[in-house]
Amino acid sequence: MSRRDDHMIFAAFASASTTKTSLGAWMHPSTDPGFLTPEYYIDLARELEHGGFDVLFFDDRLAMPAAYGGSTEPAVERGSRVVKLDLVALLGLLAGHTNRIGLGATYSTTYGMPYHVARMFATLDHLSRGRVVWNIVTSLNEDEAENFGTDYLQADQRYDRADEFLEITTQLWESWAEGAVELDRETGRFADPASVRRIDYDGKFLRSRGPLTVPRTPQGWPVLLQAGQSGRGRQFAGRWADLVFTTAHSAEAAQKHYAAQQAVTEQAGRPKDAAKILPAVMCIVGETEEIARQKNDFFNALSDPIEQLVFLAEQANFDFSDIPMDEPWDDANFDRVTGTRGIIEAFVKAGRAAFGADATLRDIVKARSMTAGNRFIGTPTQVADTLEEWFDSYGCDGFAIMPSDVPGSFEDFTRLVMPELRRRGRVPEVEVTGVTLRSRLGLADRTQ
Amino acid sequence: MSRRDDHMIFAAFASASTTKTSLGAWMHPSTDPGFLTPEYYIDLARELEHGGFDVLFFDDRLAMPAAYGGSTEPAVERGSRVVKLDLVALLGLLAGHTNRIGLGATYSTTYGMPYHVARMFATLDHLSRGRVVWNIVTSLNEDEAENFGTDYLQADQRYDRADEFLEITTQLWESWAEGAVELDRETGRFADPASVRRIDYDGKFLRSRGPLTVPRTPQGWPVLLQAGQSGRGRQFAGRWADLVFTTAHSAEAAQKHYAAQQAVTEQAGRPKDAAKILPAVMCIVGETEEIARQKNDFFNALSDPIEQLVFLAEQANFDFSDIPMDEPWDDANFDRVTGTRGIIEAFVKAGRAAFGADATLRDIVKARSMTAGNRFIGTPTQVADTLEEWFDSYGCDGFAIMPSDVPGSFEDFTRLVMPELRRRGRVPEVEVTGVTLRSRLGLADRTQ
Repeated sequence: MSRRDDHMIFAAFASASTTKTSLGAWMHPSTDPGFLTPEYYIDLARELEHGGFDVLFFDDRLAMPAAYGGSTEPAVERGSRVVKLDLVALLGLLAGHTNRIGLGATYSTTYGMPYHVARMFATLDHLSRGRVVWNIVTSLNEDEAENFGTDYLQADQRYDRADEFLEITTQLWESWAEGAVELDRETGRFADPASVRRIDYDGKFLRSRGPLTVPRTPQGWPVLLQAGQSGRGRQFAGRWADLVFTTAHSAEAAQKHYAAQQAVTEQAGRPKDAAKILPAVMCIVGETEEIARQKNDFFNALSDPIEQLVFLAEQANFDFSDIPMDEPWDDANFDRVTGTRGIIEAFVKAGRAAFGADATLRDIVKARSMTAGNRFIGTPTQVADTLEEWFDSYGCDGFAIMPSDVPGSFEDFTRLVMPELRRRGRVPEVEVTGVTLRSRLGLADRTQ
Repeated sequence: MSRRDDHMIFAAFASASTTKTSLGAWMHPSTDPGFLTPEYYIDLARELEHGGFDVLFFDDRLAMPAAYGGSTEPAVERGSRVVKLDLVALLGLLAGHTNRIGLGATYSTTYGMPYHVARMFATLDHLSRGRVVWNIVTSLNEDEAENFGTDYLQADQRYDRADEFLEITTQLWESWAEGAVELDRETGRFADPASVRRIDYDGKFLRSRGPLTVPRTPQGWPVLLQAGQSGRGRQFAGRWADLVFTTAHSAEAAQKHYAAQQAVTEQAGRPKDAAKILPAVMCIVGETEEIARQKNDFFNALSDPIEQLVFLAEQANFDFSDIPMDEPWDDANFDRVTGTRGIIEAFVKAGRAAFGADATLRDIVKARSMTAGNRFIGTPTQVADTLEEWFDSYGCDGFAIMPSDVPGSFEDFTRLVMPELRRRGRVPEVEVTGVTLRSRLGLADRTQ
């Protein structure tokens, strides 16, 4: 079953840092070390824009990893996600140096304040002429709570707060009706007072009066991106998201997630395809399959086992530092996990599959580095085939491309894979400009 | 007494809106209506940079004026400070389109969170290569508290919180030592773990652990600007400010404030001239004195009495809407003022001076519109003479130039007054680039 009439949506998943979640990637020869300079980001955005990407979005984390050994030192020494610049400042920069690509920033509903967040994204939507994307996260990390001096909220509470947060921000964006600004120098009327209203929101977690100090923006609302995988997260996405970022590890898993998300979206009262689904994939592309495999091996070798554990410790909110590296993994360890136990179970399973029942922590980490994320490795034709297979079988509406090295692996994708997809009619021939991202991607109209 | 060896510092005081505090200015023919477009701000910043300004900074207000009649409608209809875009996004934009001018954003210590604010300004300092300025405000307006769903803090509490806020942000900026990033691809060492430290701050109002996720910036700390006029505000400026924005209404008042601020700065343990003092002035310049006077009259006529009261109500946190416009002002009204009573007293005094003891509210407002702010009106030579007089008599170290219409009045200043000041040796002949703003203005070194 083919979907010849649809185009695939491509989002580049980047980081305002050395590289993305790819451990050790800062040591790769194709990684640009200028991550603290404006040129690094401007060049990246323009490369992706010219290469045919629809969206460039940046992840965020409001603290350095400190779960491993209770210290930031192992992370700082290895450069494991210790640098994250502020994304609103960065998107302001990029708005002025691009004119087609969507620009996305991650912002937390747990550590942000809705009036600020609404104003930031409204401003960015004006300054980018309707190209801004908000990647909504609820923040799961205790280290972040420490930096903000607040208590750590449990997952369900975080989503309840997030719902209120979105109710406030969307109402603030709509607090100026479209066309309210008149700027009539003859009558002296700046705006129609009947078209600008208070919101008087009073929730369980949050309050705000309004109106916003920013008139209605080109997109009305920014494009809303969300990555919730849990039941509560999918529900949230069903209600709010325009784009959903997922992490399916096979075409079948992707299809299952796709169908499940569509059902939840429909239950939330929206058209079932209102939220476009983009699984994260890392594409390692070479002129031949052998070159691609060697590039993958080279990349895997850049990271050391401690770095893998620093990263895993942060994701799972669990300290591995007192578990022996070279003794068989003890399942009793699972009882100490207070964070995301499923992540660790998956890696232990992968380790035992590769190294047997007596797999050690070192084996498990090795298995993780071989299988982490979803990788499509091969020639441009092979990678394009796999992308088509996922897309045509309704596993997705496009992809969130995870880089290995930056900008090297993004350049490989735009130079090797994108032309092949263009030839196959999977991405547009002509770059459309002068319309909002929301309209170009066929998302819900939020201007009325 | 001349100060021939010093240069005057010029800051342009702008607004991410139609115009600055100048009521009715959006109707002026020299006002660009494009305040929601990126070009408006880029053109303004480049004009000021090429014209010789040292800093462009933007005011902020986190709510629309709603004190007059308890409604935002009169303000919306007249365009009285109802639009304020987010400044971090805006400064990101401008960082990529300028290369010499300092870029300043107002950010509140009452409604912001120190970890966010530290990260935003650190990011902007990197993206601008050391040109960012933070205008620190504590926010005095009840309407702002309503938008954030928080309680309104009294002035002294706001300053106590602001002190903690600055302790946290400055410690976060210093949480990465200069040179901590090594990026050594041979050894695999990203950064020196001994050079990146937690701050573990635990205050009465605020807590934060750190480290910041942004390495040490070009300026170390952003340039800190502050406008406190009260005793507690001056104390705060003495401790923290690099630049102090003041509102003296005569050369004598400026000299008095200058001496007083220097004394307070010295008491705070810093060199007495550590905080450079910049009174706000509006310069209305014409080819002849008569042209300048007519331009001033034209500008004054753009605003109506209700708009003046909307603005005054917001500044003083007092609702004038039930006071008759055409009956003599009753001093019993003062007893109802819970906000800044001094502002209203000053205008009543001005009204009575101009219109006699029976001055009505309408008279008072009229007197206000004639005298509001500090205006230097005349030919380029006359304006330059007055600027020199204030500067040479140690009333200031430079000026914060308030525009009437934007960009018209700034263009008048850069085209008519700046060349005259350059001829007199009061501003530099040559534009210095490639150094940080902090270093170019001779402010304290915060990189070590």
